[in-house]
Amino acid sequence: MKHGSLAAEPCAIARSVAALGERWTFVILRQSFMGARRFEDYQQGTGIARNILTERLKTLVDHGILARRPYAQHATRTLHEYRLTQKGLDLYPVMISLLQWGNQHGGFADGPPMTLEHLNCGNTIEPRFTCPCCDGTIDPREMRPHVVEPVSA
Amino acid sequence: MKHGSLAAEPCAIARSVAALGERWTFVILRQSFMGARRFEDYQQGTGIARNILTERLKTLVDHGILARRPYAQHATRTLHEYRLTQKGLDLYPVMISLLQWGNQHGGFADGPPMTLEHLNCGNTIEPRFTCPCCDGTIDPREMRPHVVEPVSA
Repeated sequence: MKHGSLAAEPCAIARSVAALGERWTFVILRQSFMGARRFEDYQQGTGIARNILTERLKTLVDHGILARRPYAQHATRTLHEYRLTQKGLDLYPVMISLLQWGNQHGGFADGPPMTLEHLNCGNTIEPRFTCPCCDGTIDPREMRPHVVEPVSA
Repeated sequence: MKHGSLAAEPCAIARSVAALGERWTFVILRQSFMGARRFEDYQQGTGIARNILTERLKTLVDHGILARRPYAQHATRTLHEYRLTQKGLDLYPVMISLLQWGNQHGGFADGPPMTLEHLNCGNTIEPRFTCPCCDGTIDPREMRPHVVEPVSA
């Protein structure tokens, strides 16, 4: 199986990773969720080489995760900003899950380098996955995956 | 910035991705959470070339995400199985988030190829992120990140 073929697998994880799999993607999206808009915001926030950043931003736009819009017209060129679309905003649980796992296992001796405030209640919180039916906290040992057989043509 | 240096960044997302960033990793971990143990389980479940799979499993063992243990002794070699450690099990929210995003945006015209049953309540569910303080559903627009300044030496 080739890398590109992940996008064609009948598996949602494979297709997600086909869109996101390049590791810089997550660092770029971290900046998006922290409010980056302009190319320079992204460049300064990530330290990624400009040519690579240009390419990665284009990939995220191509996947509909970021939207590219003009925000200023200079004499010689138009400047663009890159903002999360709804599809991009829907990645928030992925980012938070990566953040929490890294906070727990990333070797931060002085504690997590980033915390999250829930503006609704004003508390610093650790979001957690719960069941919308029984409100229980999700434990992987209590979850059973079911593969849905494709509808035959 | 080089790829390897993500592991040294003072950012939990960067460090998580440094451990996980190779796209096959998520497909391998999908199999782990679906019950794969032996090399052949992983190989058949993913279709990854054997030499690449060997290397990726080793990386996951090196990161303490999978544990490698002997399960059978043959005349010429010992067979090993690869099981999730607690650090690996802690990745469940990352996997569920990728699954949900892929189900939503992966272009599955006939519906999600995988569903999740919560054994506690017996329902097919979509786990959701909630606040442990106010029980509200997490909306990225209502979350504020705070960078914790490092303690000076």
